[in-house]
Amino acid sequence: MKLTKVAVLGSTGSVGRQTLDVIRSLPGRFNVVALAAGSDVTTLEQQAREFKPRMLFCDREREYIDDRLADGRITGKWASMESMAAHRDVDLVVVATSGKAGLGPSLAAARAGKKIAIANKEVLVMAGHILTSEARRSGAELRPVDSEHSAIWQCLWGESPDSVERLVITASGGALRDVSPEQLERVTAEQALRHPNWQMGKKITVDSATLLNKGLECIEARWLFDVPLERIEVLLHRESIVHSLVEFRDGSVKAQLGVPDMRLPIQCALTYPERVPEANVPRLDLKSIGTLNFGIPDYQKFRCLALALEAGKVGGTAPAVLAAADEVAVENFLAGYIRFTEIAHVIEATLDAHSPIGNPSLEQVLEADEWARGHAAQLVKKSPAPVRTYSR
Amino acid sequence: MKLTKVAVLGSTGSVGRQTLDVIRSLPGRFNVVALAAGSDVTTLEQQAREFKPRMLFCDREREYIDDRLADGRITGKWASMESMAAHRDVDLVVVATSGKAGLGPSLAAARAGKKIAIANKEVLVMAGHILTSEARRSGAELRPVDSEHSAIWQCLWGESPDSVERLVITASGGALRDVSPEQLERVTAEQALRHPNWQMGKKITVDSATLLNKGLECIEARWLFDVPLERIEVLLHRESIVHSLVEFRDGSVKAQLGVPDMRLPIQCALTYPERVPEANVPRLDLKSIGTLNFGIPDYQKFRCLALALEAGKVGGTAPAVLAAADEVAVENFLAGYIRFTEIAHVIEATLDAHSPIGNPSLEQVLEADEWARGHAAQLVKKSPAPVRTYSR
Repeated sequence: MKLTKVAVLGSTGSVGRQTLDVIRSLPGRFNVVALAAGSDVTTLEQQAREFKPRMLFCDREREYIDDRLADGRITGKWASMESMAAHRDVDLVVVATSGKAGLGPSLAAARAGKKIAIANKEVLVMAGHILTSEARRSGAELRPVDSEHSAIWQCLWGESPDSVERLVITASGGALRDVSPEQLERVTAEQALRHPNWQMGKKITVDSATLLNKGLECIEARWLFDVPLERIEVLLHRESIVHSLVEFRDGSVKAQLGVPDMRLPIQCALTYPERVPEANVPRLDLKSIGTLNFGIPDYQKFRCLALALEAGKVGGTAPAVLAAADEVAVENFLAGYIRFTEIAHVIEATLDAHSPIGNPSLEQVLEADEWARGHAAQLVKKSPAPVRTYSR
Repeated sequence: MKLTKVAVLGSTGSVGRQTLDVIRSLPGRFNVVALAAGSDVTTLEQQAREFKPRMLFCDREREYIDDRLADGRITGKWASMESMAAHRDVDLVVVATSGKAGLGPSLAAARAGKKIAIANKEVLVMAGHILTSEARRSGAELRPVDSEHSAIWQCLWGESPDSVERLVITASGGALRDVSPEQLERVTAEQALRHPNWQMGKKITVDSATLLNKGLECIEARWLFDVPLERIEVLLHRESIVHSLVEFRDGSVKAQLGVPDMRLPIQCALTYPERVPEANVPRLDLKSIGTLNFGIPDYQKFRCLALALEAGKVGGTAPAVLAAADEVAVENFLAGYIRFTEIAHVIEATLDAHSPIGNPSLEQVLEADEWARGHAAQLVKKSPAPVRTYSR
């Protein structure tokens, strides 16, 4: 079997670490030739010792790795994420970075015609139109990693794109699904971080609690599968067993199901088109689960979801502004500066103040992002008081 | 668009009529060149007037059609089902006959390398090994029509056969799912014919009530998808929304869903690989349905299911004997000669008295069928008394 040469960007984050778990569990299939991290250099060091990549990147604390490279505890050479992504010795780029860090490398990988396992949602949300057109041009292959998009992807294998009527993205409802709209104001970071079904990073867990994440997923799906947002629906599904569905124009519906474990969609993106036996994740047992529930999300209670879908329909720079304002708002919520319900206010006010540009260049996207961060930060500062004393 | 030339065998039965409904709803796609019926000649006459097939067949009451052919009210020529199935001007044969009537025509179609939409389960149950090996040899294409098998088929599009770990066939539980084991003895034909989700013929509705039908479906799936019975599971699912599932070896599960309406799988088998817009069947709306339930069938209460799976595992002539004994038993149950619970007794005693032959020829299958009918009929005669006075 030919070894697939992999670059893992964002290797020390949640998806990055699970990607390396999957690679570790499938010896003889992959060769990790590049690892890129943000600032978690101790984890990067461990990973470098184990996988011996030829290229390394970290965004901060470089001296730590420099020392170890110097005394030979680890080997490899510094490289930018862009150069890793486009390197001739890389077959598959796993983009598990977060925020806009993945933007440049993803576009570089797309231009270089690579296989791209994409877990960084901001890349598609901010620049889906650029990424997909570059990929079409070069023949690069976008493989979703998110469980929802992986589900849709799997349901589309062997189907013609013309046959698709609607994508149905399931939503567990997040940590606050059973909190009343009245209680939402007083929600703490701790509560918002208690996701019922998935273990994920902090930012995305809060985005799941606001359901903004689900809106971002709809925007991602719009680009990944070339289906307009008007034909993408969010379906509440508490159990996170049905990961998403596709309705075809003949009325047939396909769904992909599984236990909620990111290793399954990650493995699928790594080994496609092969399905490789997976022994580390328990099998789905519907007869024991017994019941699956479905319903409509509450767009009033979860204002962020409505805002995201709106921004997605507006398109252009609007989704980038949405994502940037959200990042600022969530940071400030986690730091205790604004209330949970203010996340939506910050996003909405930022979107309101923005004049979207259609079909923007990457520069225009980045400018809009920059502007939105500044605007959102200003809004947070103007917020009457820290959370504990906040009152309407 | 090239017209697909279709022979509909069993055109006046439930699936046959719905097949013509689908063809009627898709003008310009199909040309019905042959129609074959059992004895419902008035319906056959109507169908012949509408579709003007070149070939006609009916098993009984030929004079009725002869008269109308003679005076020109309908046109066409008599032909055997075998010759229709193998005719050079037929592209697609819909086998919607029931019982063993479809056996000869299906094999003729398989030998002639046709596309075969197969709804006649006895063909696969009795001679699945012969049909599939003939189809492999000639390049004939077997397309399932049953909703469960259509579901599995659709889930397998774009997948490698090696990837399949398990097939999961859903069962509504039939008309008697909520009847206690104690009450089962006193069940009337009327009760057994009250299927909760599907409108079907009488024989298959009783087979659904005994769950024998589900066992037959497992045997059919074994041949259609080349998966041993040990890796086929029956899952109770009251709502008949999830039509069946496939578990892959990486732990991913795909399901096909839809409203319970036979026109959907029929259309799928007719238009494959295309999915054609369907406006006559309501769309699946999971958010309104709300809840889907899953569980384990009660193999003790539904003894016929256990018997069918056993016969399927034994293989050879055993499934033919099972199906033949069941046909006799169900006929006698519907006529009031035996009790509901005696259906299983008749089947079990017939299977017990049979010495199965492995990899049988068609002649051996038909001999076993003949023998089983005789044996089952004897058992029914020996049955102590008609239902009303029956007591253990």
